[in-house]
Amino acid sequence: MANGFLGNILRVNLTNETIEVEHPPEAWYRTYLGGTAVIAYYLLNEVPADCDPLGPENKLIFATGPLTGTPIAGGGRNGVGAKSPLTGGFGDSQGGGFWMAELKRAGFDHIIIEGQADRPVYLWVRDGKAELRDAEALWGRDTAVVQKMIQEELDDPAIRVTQCGIAGENQVRFACVVNDLTHFAGRTGMGAVMGAKRLKAIAVRGTQQVPVADRDEVLKLVRRLSEDVRAGTRNAALHDTGTAGGVMGLKATGGLPTRNFQEGDFEQAEAISGPTMRDTILIDRETCFACPIFCKRVVKSEAYDVDPVYGGPEYETIGSLGSNCGIDDLPAIAKGNEMCNRWGMDTISAGMTISWAMECVERGILSPSDFDGIPLKFGEPEGMLKLLEKMAHRDGVGDLLAEGSARAARHFGPQAESVTLTIKGQEIPMHEPRLKYGLGLGYAVSPTGADHCHNMHDTAFENDVASVSAFGVIKPLPADDLSAEKVRLFYYQSCWQHWLNSAVMCQFVGWTKHELLDAMRAVTGWDTSLFEMLKTGERAATLGRLFNLRVGFDDRDDELNERFFRAFKKGPLAAKWMDHKVFNRARVTYYHMMGWDDLGRPTPSRLSELDLSWAREAPLG
Amino acid sequence: MANGFLGNILRVNLTNETIEVEHPPEAWYRTYLGGTAVIAYYLLNEVPADCDPLGPENKLIFATGPLTGTPIAGGGRNGVGAKSPLTGGFGDSQGGGFWMAELKRAGFDHIIIEGQADRPVYLWVRDGKAELRDAEALWGRDTAVVQKMIQEELDDPAIRVTQCGIAGENQVRFACVVNDLTHFAGRTGMGAVMGAKRLKAIAVRGTQQVPVADRDEVLKLVRRLSEDVRAGTRNAALHDTGTAGGVMGLKATGGLPTRNFQEGDFEQAEAISGPTMRDTILIDRETCFACPIFCKRVVKSEAYDVDPVYGGPEYETIGSLGSNCGIDDLPAIAKGNEMCNRWGMDTISAGMTISWAMECVERGILSPSDFDGIPLKFGEPEGMLKLLEKMAHRDGVGDLLAEGSARAARHFGPQAESVTLTIKGQEIPMHEPRLKYGLGLGYAVSPTGADHCHNMHDTAFENDVASVSAFGVIKPLPADDLSAEKVRLFYYQSCWQHWLNSAVMCQFVGWTKHELLDAMRAVTGWDTSLFEMLKTGERAATLGRLFNLRVGFDDRDDELNERFFRAFKKGPLAAKWMDHKVFNRARVTYYHMMGWDDLGRPTPSRLSELDLSWAREAPLG
Repeated sequence: MANGFLGNILRVNLTNETIEVEHPPEAWYRTYLGGTAVIAYYLLNEVPADCDPLGPENKLIFATGPLTGTPIAGGGRNGVGAKSPLTGGFGDSQGGGFWMAELKRAGFDHIIIEGQADRPVYLWVRDGKAELRDAEALWGRDTAVVQKMIQEELDDPAIRVTQCGIAGENQVRFACVVNDLTHFAGRTGMGAVMGAKRLKAIAVRGTQQVPVADRDEVLKLVRRLSEDVRAGTRNAALHDTGTAGGVMGLKATGGLPTRNFQEGDFEQAEAISGPTMRDTILIDRETCFACPIFCKRVVKSEAYDVDPVYGGPEYETIGSLGSNCGIDDLPAIAKGNEMCNRWGMDTISAGMTISWAMECVERGILSPSDFDGIPLKFGEPEGMLKLLEKMAHRDGVGDLLAEGSARAARHFGPQAESVTLTIKGQEIPMHEPRLKYGLGLGYAVSPTGADHCHNMHDTAFENDVASVSAFGVIKPLPADDLSAEKVRLFYYQSCWQHWLNSAVMCQFVGWTKHELLDAMRAVTGWDTSLFEMLKTGERAATLGRLFNLRVGFDDRDDELNERFFRAFKKGPLAAKWMDHKVFNRARVTYYHMMGWDDLGRPTPSRLSELDLSWAREAPLG
Repeated sequence: MANGFLGNILRVNLTNETIEVEHPPEAWYRTYLGGTAVIAYYLLNEVPADCDPLGPENKLIFATGPLTGTPIAGGGRNGVGAKSPLTGGFGDSQGGGFWMAELKRAGFDHIIIEGQADRPVYLWVRDGKAELRDAEALWGRDTAVVQKMIQEELDDPAIRVTQCGIAGENQVRFACVVNDLTHFAGRTGMGAVMGAKRLKAIAVRGTQQVPVADRDEVLKLVRRLSEDVRAGTRNAALHDTGTAGGVMGLKATGGLPTRNFQEGDFEQAEAISGPTMRDTILIDRETCFACPIFCKRVVKSEAYDVDPVYGGPEYETIGSLGSNCGIDDLPAIAKGNEMCNRWGMDTISAGMTISWAMECVERGILSPSDFDGIPLKFGEPEGMLKLLEKMAHRDGVGDLLAEGSARAARHFGPQAESVTLTIKGQEIPMHEPRLKYGLGLGYAVSPTGADHCHNMHDTAFENDVASVSAFGVIKPLPADDLSAEKVRLFYYQSCWQHWLNSAVMCQFVGWTKHELLDAMRAVTGWDTSLFEMLKTGERAATLGRLFNLRVGFDDRDDELNERFFRAFKKGPLAAKWMDHKVFNRARVTYYHMMGWDDLGRPTPSRLSELDLSWAREAPLG
């Protein structure tokens, strides 16, 4: 087995209570790498297209990457996948933290969870061994309690825990998978799949070292990053103000989602900005395995009694529970964040479901009586916090809202549906397509529905050709461009993003592309290249696409909401919008660049080029 | 301007006797690099599709690469292109030597020759200056005489000369361009274009250094190669026995072209092998600019009075004038080589035209009387040598044969045509498609017609996955395979080959792909990658394709001769042949992988991906 991998995949069947270990050959590891591509491989091969995402036929995959557990910062994200209960298609999400590195150090690359337990269980993995244990006592408890109970039961405070929260138990369709309490595989409802399987948690402890091919080179890269971070020349802002550091910049450009994306320059942005957080409620900074950056926030507030054990809000949460609900009360946002983390809900989908409800009320489409009498108004935290609690527990109207905004709106009818902002059933994250046209295209074609992690953020490239010049793209392209040249950049950059997700590599560490290539070569010993890396990313995207085609998605599902084709009335982006025809043309150009036909179906020759000939004849589920 | 380039392109109009210098921006250099891609760029933009290749509208391009003139061995080949008088399509060929490095040191990246002189001239380039000079005295003289006369006239024995030989003056359709007397841009008849323009030679002298971005890194690479060569761990065989070193291996596998490709295991192979040459007629080894390998042969023989000033035969010549004519007389082959070099003819097309004639006589299709009474028989050198002389001088039947075997056969009718072995009018080189199926596909789709330099040699990869693993191709694929997997390898490898040809990089130096990437980064300072390099190669191939489509070629011209779909009667490859249907399917798979439609026409989206949107609307000539 190549360095960087253990060669062991744990397969756990909850129905039969069997545990097996599989050992694919090195070529398989090199082809599918980890994370997204591994998840897609298993879903396509093993999960029937028509199965109930919340039934026993679905499989839940936890996939590491080649760098996980090595000293290379950022390569140990928690890649979790399954058929999504939110979209009905390809489900895949990632969080940071320590759990994945611990899993690798315990001797396993991936875990496949099959079947469904008839009572709550948790999986205990320790140094090459695994067992299922009773979890009745853990059921219905807050994530911090669960983690503590497991560590006490197994008598080891160093145990790392991944779990579904109460929202997952309740099969909230946007429930997330929580690891290390403050890290979340947030999107596509993976927590609901875990809860439906009655798998409360996976506890892991490992003590072995992950082998690397060239330790000196690995340490050289690690040292360079550490020195840059220490010197403040790399990622200083991220350390200082976290992912929320960009709030004021987004407001200035008009791309800060405000009041359900009706506007883009939230007037009270400063109150919820990274610097404000730093100067008010921040009490500590945390980080992920081997990462010197410490971008994670820990906040505490007497207002709303915010518990620091659940960390602090990322930018996505600041946007979704804050500006996009019109809310400028940072402790209230921090409280919403704490509640989502305590119970295990994706803050994006949760917040977007709330902002949708607020707009419905604002427009008179719905009234508070439709929401158990809770007053819902942009800017007022009370309704937001109440709805979060109801959703997590499926209490009252929360039972409907726990289905996500697309299903809830369908319940209320066409007018309510007209103000939902979802793609393939998943709520749009906190990045404005009217600011970044390439991102809008990315939302539309992402295999997971609207998703900022399977995408590109093209404003960055407008200012920084250096970051994509390794692909041979050497001309700056404006953010408000969807020409074929821009689609080319999007094609390359989205393949790169899918590679990052397959390597479970954080996009925030600030490694250059060549440093990541060097890291791959140093860890695995493979003679790999940026070419192979991009092709691996393309393979991952194509596998996700195939899964979606099999469940019945087609090109009509690659659509961006009508709202994004209409101009803002005011603000920096006023009178700017994407032309729908240009967008449609760009989408087909992307299909073609991906080797897909006019309807977005991968062609046999591209499947062969991606070493996926088997997928041409793979069972349709 | 980026390091590695001068930023100066010399444009010489022979009709008007004007000389201009152009300065494209750095982005242009990065997009088209040099060699093949630069040539294709100019042909597509400036040469009318329907122009006479031997008329004034054709343009003759001499294109260096980014590494030319730096200490990186192999990066200074003489890339010469024009609309080909042999194929009527994309003409492009390369030779080694010193002239290109001298051109770069004289301050120019490329030379574009336009128009037609009304009397013989030569171009004199020295340190940023250029002038046209009278060449009446040089006309009709042997290449060695011409080089000496120019050096004496300009009073500098260090002057480097590129020239067309007597064959070029006579517009022999497979005349080559000769530089430094023993290096040849052999294929597609570039010497005839030069001769038709009455440009006898280009003499160059330069004294400036080519700038490099990271001198230490460049020297590190250079030292590593030198040490490996000195230690005999890299390219030892190539130094010892030259490109003819593989003769016995090819005979053993049945892939040594014998008697016009009727057989593949020439019984007297040992007599014409690299070791035999080394032990008999070899008197010295020569090399190219900055290259420590010294793979070039210098031979001398009293038999046939072989003049060592013209070097010695490469493998292609050993095959084309030797085994493929059934000839085992090494001094006779060396004499044929000397004659071709003295007068400037491509030994492959010349030899293949002769072997075609020999087979016509053997089969009774034609008789010696059709060839001025010269006895033509496989195995007998006399006819071969006589025909070479007649072709170069267009004497008697040589006037017809100087048109190449395809046109000559057409003159004699269908039976004679049935035994020609040409693709797009160019004769097949000395590699057997029935041994290497991917090579057969490459012959068919190469933009220059049958060509081993725009191709892959897939037996190498069967034994050496390491050489392609940087592309992510990690499974050994047999040589006799044309599955979609093999086409994928061919697609990647042929793009790589086109990159080599655009970087004017020798494929024999033995640099690994990552070393060449390191060299590119160290010389240019660009943040480039193997991804960009492969895309640049694909761009070159696509531009060549577009030029061919414009002159009227279509998918029916991508055909391999029927002979290669029939099994050998005996020898190691007996009962082995490519299935024509499998071949046709592989060809379409290649089209699709290249982003071409079923008929081999590049799609708009692939053109955009290759940053060639302009070519969608470019003039059709």
